Amino acid sequence: MITTGFPASGPTLRELGEREVIRLMRAAAPSSLNGDDAAVLTPAAPNSRVVASTDMLVEGRHFAPETSTPYFVGRKAVLQNFADIEAMGARPIAALLAVSADPETPARVLEDLARGVADEASAYACELVGGDVTGGNRLVVAVTAIGALGGNRPPLTLDGARPGQRVIAHGRLGYSAAGLALLQAGVDVPERLEPLVHAHQVPELIPGRGVVARAAGACAMTDNSDGLIRDLTMLAEASGVGIELASTAIAPDPLLVAAGELLGTDPWQWVLGGGEDHTLLGTIEGSAPVGFRSIGTVSRKAGVRVDGAVPAVTAGWESF
Amino acid sequence: MITTGFPASGPTLRELGEREVIRLMRAAAPSSLNGDDAAVLTPAAPNSRVVASTDMLVEGRHFAPETSTPYFVGRKAVLQNFADIEAMGARPIAALLAVSADPETPARVLEDLARGVADEASAYACELVGGDVTGGNRLVVAVTAIGALGGNRPPLTLDGARPGQRVIAHGRLGYSAAGLALLQAGVDVPERLEPLVHAHQVPELIPGRGVVARAAGACAMTDNSDGLIRDLTMLAEASGVGIELASTAIAPDPLLVAAGELLGTDPWQWVLGGGEDHTLLGTIEGSAPVGFRSIGTVSRKAGVRVDGAVPAVTAGWESF
Repeated sequence: MITTGFPASGPTLRELGEREVIRLMRAAAPSSLNGDDAAVLTPAAPNSRVVASTDMLVEGRHFAPETSTPYFVGRKAVLQNFADIEAMGARPIAALLAVSADPETPARVLEDLARGVADEASAYACELVGGDVTGGNRLVVAVTAIGALGGNRPPLTLDGARPGQRVIAHGRLGYSAAGLALLQAGVDVPERLEPLVHAHQVPELIPGRGVVARAAGACAMTDNSDGLIRDLTMLAEASGVGIELASTAIAPDPLLVAAGELLGTDPWQWVLGGGEDHTLLGTIEGSAPVGFRSIGTVSRKAGVRVDGAVPAVTAGWESF
Repeated sequence: MITTGFPASGPTLRELGEREVIRLMRAAAPSSLNGDDAAVLTPAAPNSRVVASTDMLVEGRHFAPETSTPYFVGRKAVLQNFADIEAMGARPIAALLAVSADPETPARVLEDLARGVADEASAYACELVGGDVTGGNRLVVAVTAIGALGGNRPPLTLDGARPGQRVIAHGRLGYSAAGLALLQAGVDVPERLEPLVHAHQVPELIPGRGVVARAAGACAMTDNSDGLIRDLTMLAEASGVGIELASTAIAPDPLLVAAGELLGTDPWQWVLGGGEDHTLLGTIEGSAPVGFRSIGTVSRKAGVRVDGAVPAVTAGWESF
C-alpha cells in the first residue's frame, strides 16, 4: 500500500500555541532527556569520541505531500543523518529536531513528524533528545544526529581508500530515485513495484552496519546521498584514487527494470545517478563484512568507472 | 555605528553551485574537523557527558535585513545555542550549521553567515564542525551546539531551584528588546543608545559563566530567551517554587530609560517581557558567583513576582 499526503485539518499551530505544540511533539517522541535548555546525554564508553552531523529538509525540495507523509519525513530525516554517523563507523546515540512551519499548519503534521523521528531513532536505540519549533512559511526540518565512536581505530573517512581495496555496499541502489519517479509520474503503481516507493519514502537500512564495517577493517566510507557515481567520486577524489565498479554487481534488479519499462526510463540512471538511498559505500582490504556486498575495486587511476568506462550519468542531486 | 542590511549583489548560490558555496563557507569558517559525512570531535575529558541543543532562526521572524546582517545572524545563532549549553553548566565544544536559502541569494550572504558562526564559536575556543546547505524560499538557519559536562555534579536543570536560594543573573536584561524597538521604529538612533542595538544584534556574554556557576554550586539555570518573567516562570514551575525579584536589582538602567523616553515605551516592558538577551539566570545557595549579580530569591509560593506583586507583562516571544 502506498501512503502519501499531509493532514490538512485539525487544530493549527497558531490555535494551540507553542507550548501545547511542544507538549504534543514530546508526547509523540517521549524522552526523559528532553525538556531542559539542552539535553545531557548518558555517558558513552570511556575514550569514545563524539560524532555529529546535520541535514536540512525543505518542503517542495526534499519532500512533498504528493510523495510522502510527515511521519515518513521524520523517519527519513533521522535515517539520513544516522547514515552519516554510520558512514564514519560510529553508532548513533541521539537525535535533535528543529522545525519551522506555517502557523496555519495542523499541529498533527508536527506530531506525526515527531513520531516518525522517534520511531526511526528507536530502531537505533536512540531518542529525540531536544529540539526547537518556530513559525515560518513552509515546512523546514533540520535533524542533527549525535553518535559515539568507540575504540582506537580511526573513523571511516572519505580519504581512507587505497588502491587494491574492495568497494562494498550495504543497501539498495537506485530504489529511491525509481520510487520518486513512480510517484511523480502519477501512474497507478503496480503492487510489486511498491517497494521502490517505500524505499523513496523511508530507505531500508539495517542499523549498525557502519560499526560492523569498521570492526571488520573497512577504511573509507560514505553513503549514497547524492548519487552513486557522485558520492563515490567525492570519496575517490578525497582519497586520491579511482574506483572500478562491476556492472554485474550493481545492475538494475527486476523491480528497477520493470519500473524503467513502465516509465520509459533507463533504470541505470537511477542506479548510477539517483541519490537518497543512503546505502553505505565503503572500501576494505579482504572480504566484504556481514551485510555488505562487493561492487568493485579501488584503482590508482582517478575517476569512477563501470566496467572500465566512465558512465554517462544525467541525474544527481544539486541543492541550488 | 549601526550596521544592517544583507548583501544584495554578487554571484548567487545558483550561479556558483553547491560545491563552490560549501567551499566558500568552509573557507570562512575553517575547521579540520569539517568535510566528511560527520564530524568526529576531539575526545573530551573522561567521564564528561555530551550536551546538545538546537535552534532554528527564520528570516522575517527572528532576523531581517532591516535589523541585522548575515554576519550578526551567524554570531547570534551560535551565541543563543551556546547559552543553552552554558545554562546546563556545560562548556560548548562544537557548532553545526544547517541553512536553506533562495538559490538567487548572493553567496556572500552565506559566506558572511559562516564567518559570524566561526567568529562567535572561536570566542568559546570552538569551531564550526559540520553543516548542510540547501535551497529554499527564505533564509532559514539551524544551529546545533554540542557541549561537554565534566565532573560529577549534576547539570543545572530547570527543576533544581529550592526555596531560600538566591536568584542570579549574568548579562543584560531588556537590552535586546529595546534595541529591536529602536531599529523597528525607524528613528535616528542616538550614539549613546547604540549599545542597545548592538545587544539585539549580538548579545554580549562572557563565555564560561555557566561552568563557573556550576562549580560555585548553582543548582538551577536557564537563559533569557523568551523574556525574563516567562523564562523564570518556566524554571519556577519545573522546580515547584516561586521567585521573588527585587525591582532595584533589575530596574531599567539609564540607557533603557532614555530609549523608553525616545520611543514613548515603558522600559520595564523590555526588562520583564523582552527576550533574546540570553542572559544566564540561575539559583544558588549563598553568594553570587563571579560575573553574576543577585536579582532575587526563591520562595515557596508559586509564581514570579517583583517586589511581591505579579508584574503586568505584555511582551514575550511566541513562536506561532
